[in-house]
Amino acid sequence: MAKTEKSKKKIINKKAHQTHVGIIMGSDSDLPVMQDAATILNEFAIPFELTVVSAHRTPKRMVEYASQAASRGLKVIIAGAGGAAHLPGMIASLTILPVIGVPIKSSNSIDGWDSILSILQMPNGVPVATVALNAAKNAGIIAAEIIGTSDKTVADKLINYKTDMEKSVLEKAKNLSAKWPNNFDE
Amino acid sequence: MAKTEKSKKKIINKKAHQTHVGIIMGSDSDLPVMQDAATILNEFAIPFELTVVSAHRTPKRMVEYASQAASRGLKVIIAGAGGAAHLPGMIASLTILPVIGVPIKSSNSIDGWDSILSILQMPNGVPVATVALNAAKNAGIIAAEIIGTSDKTVADKLINYKTDMEKSVLEKAKNLSAKWPNNFDE
Amino acid sequence: MAKTEKSKKKIINKKAHQTHVGIIMGSDSDLPVMQDAATILNEFAIPFELTVVSAHRTPKRMVEYASQAASRGLKVIIAGAGGAAHLPGMIASLTILPVIGVPIKSSNSIDGWDSILSILQMPNGVPVATVALNAAKNAGIIAAEIIGTSDKTVADKLINYKTDMEKSVLEKAKNLSAKWPNNFDE
Amino acid sequence: MAKTEKSKKKIINKKAHQTHVGIIMGSDSDLPVMQDAATILNEFAIPFELTVVSAHRTPKRMVEYASQAASRGLKVIIAGAGGAAHLPGMIASLTILPVIGVPIKSSNSIDGWDSILSILQMPNGVPVATVALNAAKNAGIIAAEIIGTSDKTVADKLINYKTDMEKSVLEKAKNLSAKWPNNFDE
Amino acid sequence: MAKTEKSKKKIINKKAHQTHVGIIMGSDSDLPVMQDAATILNEFAIPFELTVVSAHRTPKRMVEYASQAASRGLKVIIAGAGGAAHLPGMIASLTILPVIGVPIKSSNSIDGWDSILSILQMPNGVPVATVALNAAKNAGIIAAEIIGTSDKTVADKLINYKTDMEKSVLEKAKNLSAKWPNNFDE
Amino acid sequence: MAKTEKSKKKIINKKAHQTHVGIIMGSDSDLPVMQDAATILNEFAIPFELTVVSAHRTPKRMVEYASQAASRGLKVIIAGAGGAAHLPGMIASLTILPVIGVPIKSSNSIDGWDSILSILQMPNGVPVATVALNAAKNAGIIAAEIIGTSDKTVADKLINYKTDMEKSVLEKAKNLSAKWPNNFDE
Amino acid sequence: MAKTEKSKKKIINKKAHQTHVGIIMGSDSDLPVMQDAATILNEFAIPFELTVVSAHRTPKRMVEYASQAASRGLKVIIAGAGGAAHLPGMIASLTILPVIGVPIKSSNSIDGWDSILSILQMPNGVPVATVALNAAKNAGIIAAEIIGTSDKTVADKLINYKTDMEKSVLEKAKNLSAKWPNNFDE
Amino acid sequence: MAKTEKSKKKIINKKAHQTHVGIIMGSDSDLPVMQDAATILNEFAIPFELTVVSAHRTPKRMVEYASQAASRGLKVIIAGAGGAAHLPGMIASLTILPVIGVPIKSSNSIDGWDSILSILQMPNGVPVATVALNAAKNAGIIAAEIIGTSDKTVADKLINYKTDMEKSVLEKAKNLSAKWPNNFDE
Repeated sequence: MAKTEKSKKKIINKKAHQTHVGIIMGSDSDLPVMQDAATILNEFAIPFELTVVSAHRTPKRMVEYASQAASRGLKVIIAGAGGAAHLPGMIASLTILPVIGVPIKSSNSIDGWDSILSILQMPNGVPVATVALNAAKNAGIIAAEIIGTSDKTVADKLINYKTDMEKSVLEKAKNLSAKWPNNFDE
Repeated sequence: MAKTEKSKKKIINKKAHQTHVGIIMGSDSDLPVMQDAATILNEFAIPFELTVVSAHRTPKRMVEYASQAASRGLKVIIAGAGGAAHLPGMIASLTILPVIGVPIKSSNSIDGWDSILSILQMPNGVPVATVALNAAKNAGIIAAEIIGTSDKTVADKLINYKTDMEKSVLEKAKNLSAKWPNNFDE
Repeated sequence: MAKTEKSKKKIINKKAHQTHVGIIMGSDSDLPVMQDAATILNEFAIPFELTVVSAHRTPKRMVEYASQAASRGLKVIIAGAGGAAHLPGMIASLTILPVIGVPIKSSNSIDGWDSILSILQMPNGVPVATVALNAAKNAGIIAAEIIGTSDKTVADKLINYKTDMEKSVLEKAKNLSAKWPNNFDE
Repeated sequence: MAKTEKSKKKIINKKAHQTHVGIIMGSDSDLPVMQDAATILNEFAIPFELTVVSAHRTPKRMVEYASQAASRGLKVIIAGAGGAAHLPGMIASLTILPVIGVPIKSSNSIDGWDSILSILQMPNGVPVATVALNAAKNAGIIAAEIIGTSDKTVADKLINYKTDMEKSVLEKAKNLSAKWPNNFDE
Repeated sequence: MAKTEKSKKKIINKKAHQTHVGIIMGSDSDLPVMQDAATILNEFAIPFELTVVSAHRTPKRMVEYASQAASRGLKVIIAGAGGAAHLPGMIASLTILPVIGVPIKSSNSIDGWDSILSILQMPNGVPVATVALNAAKNAGIIAAEIIGTSDKTVADKLINYKTDMEKSVLEKAKNLSAKWPNNFDE
Repeated sequence: MAKTEKSKKKIINKKAHQTHVGIIMGSDSDLPVMQDAATILNEFAIPFELTVVSAHRTPKRMVEYASQAASRGLKVIIAGAGGAAHLPGMIASLTILPVIGVPIKSSNSIDGWDSILSILQMPNGVPVATVALNAAKNAGIIAAEIIGTSDKTVADKLINYKTDMEKSVLEKAKNLSAKWPNNFDE
Repeated sequence: MAKTEKSKKKIINKKAHQTHVGIIMGSDSDLPVMQDAATILNEFAIPFELTVVSAHRTPKRMVEYASQAASRGLKVIIAGAGGAAHLPGMIASLTILPVIGVPIKSSNSIDGWDSILSILQMPNGVPVATVALNAAKNAGIIAAEIIGTSDKTVADKLINYKTDMEKSVLEKAKNLSAKWPNNFDE
Repeated sequence: MAKTEKSKKKIINKKAHQTHVGIIMGSDSDLPVMQDAATILNEFAIPFELTVVSAHRTPKRMVEYASQAASRGLKVIIAGAGGAAHLPGMIASLTILPVIGVPIKSSNSIDGWDSILSILQMPNGVPVATVALNAAKNAGIIAAEIIGTSDKTVADKLINYKTDMEKSVLEKAKNLSAKWPNNFDE
């Protein structure tokens, strides 16, 4: 990456001391899935950070990340992992912040079932808010909804987002009616 | 699409005010699967309409579509969706028309299991007539069978359809016998 | 059963020549599940018949039953079976009537998965309208909905049935509010 | 329930106009599971309401409940359902509040798989924060964590809750060491 | 196919009146899988026939095929099908010959689970001897083993077949030892 | 067991030197399931033996049993096992006799899936003819069918068995018609 | 427990400073399953310790236990857990000792699938040696086998154990032959 | 392979008489997966051998391999197989060495479930230490951990291996921070 480009990136995230959402993943191979969370948080202008934290290969980093999260000002943590996915649950055991888990259908996962069950089936007392397989975008939206419970600006953006989704479907319905007319919309 | 082509389409579906079957789907990405229902209904000359109705992104449209279906003269609704597929079941909750559900193996579906179970496992009182994964064609045939219970023309077409299927297999058996002779057919 | 009681039963089903729905099952051990279809059809005053037809132990009876169903005046067939459940699909191969399949979690079934997949996953051209595991009641409701497409009396009964279901839930909500008050209903 | 007892209940929830969490379920048969959410919210002194809202039997009530939730001051909705569980996802389609879904292993559920997949596998744009099968208690804890992001009192209670859990395990470990001594704790 | 080629084929199967094994399949699209049975029976010089018999599209042909199988001199029937695979079980209901079922992972099958369960989970009294998914070759070997119980020539061929398999593995082990020496074989 | 009773047993199986079917199982805890095979073979008057052979706890016994089976005059081996069920497949690797595998839902089995897959999914070249979960009776019937391919007495018994099954269902249908009259049987 | 009894226990484990195997579990409700590991290690006279270590409720205890295990002289760790079972994998991330994982079908587990997949499907670099569901006894045997690789006394005990298992089956076979004579054993 | 290259290979494994780990697999088609075990053992400088041993096609070779393993000086056996994978369990039945099983998603495997369950679900008394699907590398690491319990050189290498893994993740985290800055690492 050219230096100037890198600098620009830095500037965008300059207010990182106000970071509200931490996006972490067990491996950088999870990035293609997990960056959907970053993209949607950007859309909502919610400041976030994104890094790699492996429960199995960097357990100390994981303990530190989770332990410091609240004091560093994070409000929500989004954690994605594949296979025997322990990252979201272990983070949840070490913080009182809401933890959103993203099961990832990684190369070593059996159709995603291992990732889903390892994240979803947490014992009583230590929940992980789990989203659909690979649904990092939805994890980002839940993070926004959580922040929206105490931030009207974000809440308003969520209302707009919902309206836009609806419009987009209505437009598609309209497009389809060119080829497939229907009485309902006429 | 050129204007003349579009006009021609309109003419084919001109008698749309008599539409008997509504084909709806959660997303226009389901169209490649769901148009098999349209094709077979066309074969049976049963008037239908086809559009996008998303339970999750256009809930109001969904409520209206289902609520008006019977009064608009529809006799059957075919609803297809993938993943956590709520469209068929929600439509069924809002109409007394028979609702045929088509589970779709969409990109966000886990081998189709989520779509199947979300559509099939409806609670007592609100059934969805579910067909096989991606089997929009079979949904169209059930719609024809339902209409055929009170429309002899359609019933006769179904008889012919069954006969043609049988003939087609017998012909294939005959073709195979060139390479693989068998005593049964000789 | 005492003779008089038996006679009374006969009288109830006297108009059997007008029977509109055939309820069949692979084994009389399926009766505790399948009679839910009979009960709901009785509620809707839709004349039906109920008997045992085994695809595997009485294949000839099955062929005859399916072949004569339409000419005997049946409009819908409800077929229930467990394990490798071939009855609904084989009936569907032999009639153009809509066939509603009820997967049964029988003693030889693996949690119902075999029954569900054997009934649901029919090939193109020969559909079975499948309901949830053990949901014979819902099969009866679909049968009523099908008949309701050409019989206003039945359609009206379905509207009432839906209204009653709604009322019943609202009443339960009211009862709950005694112990668990909520702002929404106040 | 005697009148006086009922009045007492009312008083406990008197501040219901400040209700922050709505606990809803598809059927009152889900209450034995779902009241775990109520119990834990009571422990955290978070005001909540609890009622029955059925997606399939009271679709209008569902639309109204979801549509008014934010304006009525709710911050989080906990929705539980079994089988083809559409309630959490449909609520999520109609509000921008975070929706926590509790899959319930109800009598008509296939080992809970249908409930889990119907709630978890929501499409992009409309997430449900899903917890483990029957884990209404964990749903309550996530609700507390969400509220805790902007309410220090609740956050502090969560810290205490975590500490108590840890103590409880350490005590059990101590009890075990009576029969099974171990070097680690000595 | 050129005429001469076709004639040659005929000659190979000239002794078809002595056909001992019937290989049938639900669709000619199953041929790429099912011809493995033909190939291995050819290796064992066991006369067979191969054709298409669809339980769902040619139910009458199926009944006739199964009913005449024993009287036509067949000793074993190998039946392959995919999805809701009813062919093997229905054939078994209509003959006392051993029926070997081959579950096929066809295009409409959910990872093969539907085919396997539809064939394997037959009720008491009407068994199908099921082989692994797509394992038509193994179906052919079981047919040979069955015939080998009363035909010493075939039994001897099976002994040779087993010996050859063993030799083939030993040779591969030897080849591997060039790159990966091992003490065991030295 | 009293001596006289034991002697009587011996006499029944006196012609054991002609034993045609070997029924083996991995553990004597499998006996309640596996004796169904013995019972049906007794009905068909087919001489059999029954014993415990554990692939994992008596591997040498297993090798010897399989290796000597053909020379001792056995024609078919029925092998049942639960969990990681290796007995049927290992026996099949050591004999050219047809091996019928019975997956058993033993106490250490996960709903039977492990037993089924361990027996069914044999590699090319070494098949096991698998029956439904716990279906030892069906294993016995396949053994009879195999013997019936070269033994007319057994074949005739199988025909009678099929006829009796059919009669039994017809009788049940007749009994049902007392309470549930149907037009078909009248 | 009376004081004298407790003292006796202490004496038995007096040589605890030589403890070779650590048996840990996520909850004391796992004890009925996990004590099978203790029992078999006792049979092999291998010194062990047993306690509760919860990954989710006592993460610090877990980190300490795993980090000190090797320096405290442990050679093997057996870790059992149910549901989203993170204990074995997290221990494995914090030690170079072999970790044997026991999936437990606890009350919050979905038929054990979550426990199995959460323990088995570890990523490359951080393995857990997984045993069958609830198979704590087998975990104990693997621990003995591991110790047996450098301890001839234990190895000899394993040989005896295997011989005893074989004898026990042979005896059962002999007992069965009283009722079910077989040619093989005669 | 050229002669000189072959010689060179021989030299590398010259100390084969000290071989500590036996890597075996059911088919040479499993080599692409299983050689990961060889590679990691090479990294740890642990002498090993690698060959093909098929439970089903070379049962005698399997019995001999397992029976001689301990006396030939092996300390651990790694066995990989796909489908109905009997090799690891059968080896375990014939030796007291720890056996590590690698389930392989071979071409005839149903998404790996058959391989996993056939290897994992061993009965009490005969364990197989199972790793994740295709995780031959992890099998190699467990073998090293086992040897490390009595070999300090290997134990030290394992410590280094763990440190390197951690470093590698930290480096990736650092690389990510160029594009995605985060407060935690700053």
